[in-house]
Amino acid sequence: MKQDGLVRLLESMTMDEKINQLIQLAATFYSEDSKENTGPIREVGLTEENVWNAGSILGQSGAAESIKIQRKYMEKHRLGVPVLFMADVIHGFRTIFPIPLALGCSWDLEMAEKVAEISAREASVSGVHVVFSPMADLVRDPRWGRVMESTGEDPLLNSFFATAFVKGYQGKDPGKEPERVAACVKHYAGYGAVSGGREYNTVNMSERQLRESYLSAYHAAIEAGVKVVMTSFNTVDGIPATGNAWLLRRLLREEQKFEGIIISDWGAVEELTVHAVAKDRKEAALLALKAGVDIEMMTSCYAHHLEELAAEEPSLETLLDQAVMRVLKLKNDLGLFEDPFRGADPEKEERIVLCQEHRQVAREAALKSIVLLKNDGILPVKEGVQVAVIGPGAASKDILGAWSWQGRTQEAVSMIEGAKKIDPKILTGSEPFDYIAPSAKAVSEAVQLAERSEVVILALGEPAWMSGEAASRSDIRLPESQLEFFRKVRKINKNVIVVLYNGRPLDLQGINDANGIVEAWFPGTEGGHALAEVLWGKFNPCGRLCMSFPEQAGQLPIYYNADNTGRPAGISAEPKYISKYLDVANEAKYAFGFGLSYSEFHYGQLVLDKNVLASDGRISATIEVENRSKADGLETVQLYIRDLVGEVVRPIKELKDFRRLALPAGQKCKVTFTIEESMLRYFHSDQSFTSDAGEFDVMIGPDSANLTTQRFRLIK
Amino acid sequence: MKQDGLVRLLESMTMDEKINQLIQLAATFYSEDSKENTGPIREVGLTEENVWNAGSILGQSGAAESIKIQRKYMEKHRLGVPVLFMADVIHGFRTIFPIPLALGCSWDLEMAEKVAEISAREASVSGVHVVFSPMADLVRDPRWGRVMESTGEDPLLNSFFATAFVKGYQGKDPGKEPERVAACVKHYAGYGAVSGGREYNTVNMSERQLRESYLSAYHAAIEAGVKVVMTSFNTVDGIPATGNAWLLRRLLREEQKFEGIIISDWGAVEELTVHAVAKDRKEAALLALKAGVDIEMMTSCYAHHLEELAAEEPSLETLLDQAVMRVLKLKNDLGLFEDPFRGADPEKEERIVLCQEHRQVAREAALKSIVLLKNDGILPVKEGVQVAVIGPGAASKDILGAWSWQGRTQEAVSMIEGAKKIDPKILTGSEPFDYIAPSAKAVSEAVQLAERSEVVILALGEPAWMSGEAASRSDIRLPESQLEFFRKVRKINKNVIVVLYNGRPLDLQGINDANGIVEAWFPGTEGGHALAEVLWGKFNPCGRLCMSFPEQAGQLPIYYNADNTGRPAGISAEPKYISKYLDVANEAKYAFGFGLSYSEFHYGQLVLDKNVLASDGRISATIEVENRSKADGLETVQLYIRDLVGEVVRPIKELKDFRRLALPAGQKCKVTFTIEESMLRYFHSDQSFTSDAGEFDVMIGPDSANLTTQRFRLIK
Repeated sequence: MKQDGLVRLLESMTMDEKINQLIQLAATFYSEDSKENTGPIREVGLTEENVWNAGSILGQSGAAESIKIQRKYMEKHRLGVPVLFMADVIHGFRTIFPIPLALGCSWDLEMAEKVAEISAREASVSGVHVVFSPMADLVRDPRWGRVMESTGEDPLLNSFFATAFVKGYQGKDPGKEPERVAACVKHYAGYGAVSGGREYNTVNMSERQLRESYLSAYHAAIEAGVKVVMTSFNTVDGIPATGNAWLLRRLLREEQKFEGIIISDWGAVEELTVHAVAKDRKEAALLALKAGVDIEMMTSCYAHHLEELAAEEPSLETLLDQAVMRVLKLKNDLGLFEDPFRGADPEKEERIVLCQEHRQVAREAALKSIVLLKNDGILPVKEGVQVAVIGPGAASKDILGAWSWQGRTQEAVSMIEGAKKIDPKILTGSEPFDYIAPSAKAVSEAVQLAERSEVVILALGEPAWMSGEAASRSDIRLPESQLEFFRKVRKINKNVIVVLYNGRPLDLQGINDANGIVEAWFPGTEGGHALAEVLWGKFNPCGRLCMSFPEQAGQLPIYYNADNTGRPAGISAEPKYISKYLDVANEAKYAFGFGLSYSEFHYGQLVLDKNVLASDGRISATIEVENRSKADGLETVQLYIRDLVGEVVRPIKELKDFRRLALPAGQKCKVTFTIEESMLRYFHSDQSFTSDAGEFDVMIGPDSANLTTQRFRLIK
Repeated sequence: MKQDGLVRLLESMTMDEKINQLIQLAATFYSEDSKENTGPIREVGLTEENVWNAGSILGQSGAAESIKIQRKYMEKHRLGVPVLFMADVIHGFRTIFPIPLALGCSWDLEMAEKVAEISAREASVSGVHVVFSPMADLVRDPRWGRVMESTGEDPLLNSFFATAFVKGYQGKDPGKEPERVAACVKHYAGYGAVSGGREYNTVNMSERQLRESYLSAYHAAIEAGVKVVMTSFNTVDGIPATGNAWLLRRLLREEQKFEGIIISDWGAVEELTVHAVAKDRKEAALLALKAGVDIEMMTSCYAHHLEELAAEEPSLETLLDQAVMRVLKLKNDLGLFEDPFRGADPEKEERIVLCQEHRQVAREAALKSIVLLKNDGILPVKEGVQVAVIGPGAASKDILGAWSWQGRTQEAVSMIEGAKKIDPKILTGSEPFDYIAPSAKAVSEAVQLAERSEVVILALGEPAWMSGEAASRSDIRLPESQLEFFRKVRKINKNVIVVLYNGRPLDLQGINDANGIVEAWFPGTEGGHALAEVLWGKFNPCGRLCMSFPEQAGQLPIYYNADNTGRPAGISAEPKYISKYLDVANEAKYAFGFGLSYSEFHYGQLVLDKNVLASDGRISATIEVENRSKADGLETVQLYIRDLVGEVVRPIKELKDFRRLALPAGQKCKVTFTIEESMLRYFHSDQSFTSDAGEFDVMIGPDSANLTTQRFRLIK
């Protein structure tokens, strides 16, 4: 449909029909089961007519069922406006990829794009039009369960991933590619900074800090053409995002020129009354509409009050019309007016969902997301060695992680299954082994296996419910039963490899003296295969942390790109009056960017081709990297910059570029980065985004804590 | 001297003489010991002339020595401008009172004023003119060691204490009262919010949050006429306070109309180069002067660069003259031009410092600062019972706490000394018992004593060096050796009272099942006497927490006046999607305002005389409190208000008033509070400080977690 067609359509709609376009309801409302059906309707206080005229449906899946609903919908809607299906496709649809925090550790943007593309394909053939991904929330506190859904603590890396995901989901134009979907970046804005890492908690920071660290990844998604933005549950300087006109109108619409749909998170419009910035649901509707929220998810403030509000204040009708037009436009952009069933295709669904090709990409993604944290030489496991694979994660298929909506744990490959393909002689137990409270029998069986083996692979971690939404933990160590189990095994076996399944950086006190530590995150459907390949050296690990691991949880929040303070450790001979804790170092246990390989990479001198940079000039920074081992490997060469003097305090380092470098055994290679003025800009106290003339340190190395430095000067 | 005299004096000064007035050096520079003397001078790069013309000296004490320095000074200074002596008198001079965090738990403002008055008296007779107190930094994270120097987490309580301290130090006019001193409120601003509780770390929050929670206590001190303000080490939205013109010129000078001296914290001007907002010391001087810093403490950026800067930019000379005038004015206000020796008096010093009268007030302050956290009936200790007093704190005199500069531990009364005065038959050990690593002998002796006793008083906690400046802890539990010791004692004795010496709220996991827990903080010189009186029931404890104790450190930051969030626990039947941790409740272990008594207080119905409040009207809120016990006691009745709907999210409760009520056994009493519109104002998103018409909950009770509620409406 052309734009004038949309305009005529809008003009022909009644007020009720318009408002219904702004309602989003869960798929349960459309279930055949009348109990399911009438229950929620009554609860939300909507009529049957609201329901069958609602603009979009959340969480519906399955091609046949989607087609059925859409058909019934088209029959019931006076103007034949099709419904839009949206869903929580976060790290895969039915083929589950590693959780986003793990994908973030791949630093592989092409792969991330591929992951999103496959997710889009599986989702679209199953009837989904919009996916609630990527989550671009920057995170610094692993107590928050939802860090698993983020790509980590770095604004630039998050921006790159947000862009890659949007490209992968949407392709060039999802209107022309039915196997693509529209993406929805979330959660605007600052949700990752919840106080105390406690879910849904207050967020507070200055506007400059918000811009400096938190907004850029959302904005990258917008630059990449994301169709939908979801508001966050949290407050932004005291005003919930969903009712925050400064945030949504001024920053997002005016500054960022975002023209797509703004959708509330689940229930967030009505929650304005719980946050208590609105005295009732009517005021909540008013605040949300004024702020710029187009679609209200799962509550009915718009349905019940927008007509009355528009009657009282006619200018609101313009806002309402704009919101409706955005919904109609997305439907049109996706081609739903031409083909309301779009990609939904039961036959194709049957054929491609969880197909071997997709599994293969899931395996590749898992391989690249695994981070080798510690290795005293025990890894890779040598041939012919007797290995036991024990612990709660050994046989577990609970390795998909939270937000794997359509994923089925029974379709996942466990570590034991993967390991047996490489070494059928591994020892494994038969007792179910709980993550929190294992039976004495399970523990004693496992300990006996450990006793009989040369090498023990101890699979520990968190069950999936321990991370994700509403899964904050105040204590981020492994459960005490696992620490105790580790001590028992350690006592009788001196060759212990710990494999960790978890959705957040952990405080690893209690297992730090394992011989090897492999961070597997929640690796998805093909996790077990990937892990076995890494453990037995069929694949050389290359993942790099996108979020710091603290030495102790008492260091939180901890992140590599911190400010210097006025009394940093190391600057004075004074041991007392420096910025430190009495009982632990300031540094992370495993820093941002860190990850081991079976190769050994050596870095040469960092050479700049000049040390003065003009505003329109470039500096080439070159470093030689050598693989001094017998294993081909992949090194992620990282470039950081520090602005030595700023108008505001500048971070001690900021990631500005990186290169993933496949380096065969024994070979070396020169890597050259280009430094330009645009990389040196930052937000000043007046919110201007500019650079300052002066000196800068450029640092290159294998992770944020091991860097070689050179200095240059920017002249203006 | 009259104002025109000061103007003429200023006019007669050379540029050098002016700049020297803005220098503050440590007393070590004036020592007779030439090694001490020349060393620091060389280090800071000053001349002998700078030193003997510097405007003020830091940390000098002793009447005779001060008189000597002043005499020499007056001889050397061409214009006879006397030097100003400033010092870190924080919670007492030689008579050490409980640490400020403990005094905060007294909720006794008269007593706080008395404490400051006595501190001023001892300091002034010893030659001090200005004390670096009160610290008005609001604190929410007990990892920060300097919480011991704060009066806690509440803006109003902090404001009351800041006011009381200023009044106590300064009296009505310290110029007319030589036994008073000028006070210096610190640290402007927001120092208490250092990230991760790590000393000197970055602070970030919005301007509204800064105003809402952090600024009011400093501003209360300014309202009370405080003569000096010290800048903080931290950044305020990216710009270090010491170079922050928005903070110091716009907020402090223009908005708050502060006309006194702004002094940097130790070294903070030069630290602008470390924070890296100044490229060198010259720029640091420029930023600090422009921001409004009058006195540079302990670095020489002003000394070396102000003349040059003023030559380059003549308008700076005006700023410089203003700064010098402020220094001269304070000297004049204190009467130093008439009597440069002011209160310094060796004879009086000998007589009143640590005199019995002062000790008596220290004892009273300690009594009122002790908080009874838990009591299953074991307390007070019954007559005739065999008691052992053991553990690292039992014989310790390290009970003064950090920042007790002139305090001497040997003058402190230990718990054992105090206890023996009441019950000479208590069992005590003779082995020294270390707080961190006690000898096996000490532990076994103590365990044996515990075995032989009916009741054990176990004195645990932190040595003084574990809190205070540069003493952040990532782990705020008791040292592991103490937990182990507790377990041993608990096993063999079922009547264990834990007494805690510490400078911060602790994570009490591991000792929660003691029969009684007494929070003694660092109680100061008379600590042991006070503790014994509380333990044996000679004094009925009445302290109330001014800072929350977490259930676990993983809840940090935790504070009672938090925001509601959009998904608070308890509002929905949904157990998962609420703001919570998986592993611990949201609530504090011991909430703000909490403290037990040997009395039992019962609260009746809360009655409002009306439920509509006009802008110029008043509501009386009355509640009956009854002492249903046989012990006379003191109850602190607390009034909190919640604004039910705000333009920005409002805290779930805020302390608005309280009454300390002495209630004899068996008696009851009606307490009436007055509620006015002015108590309902808050900072809106445009920074306006106003109230909104609408509904409010008024809550009264014994602590922030146990309250009776009524509702009223404000009409405008």
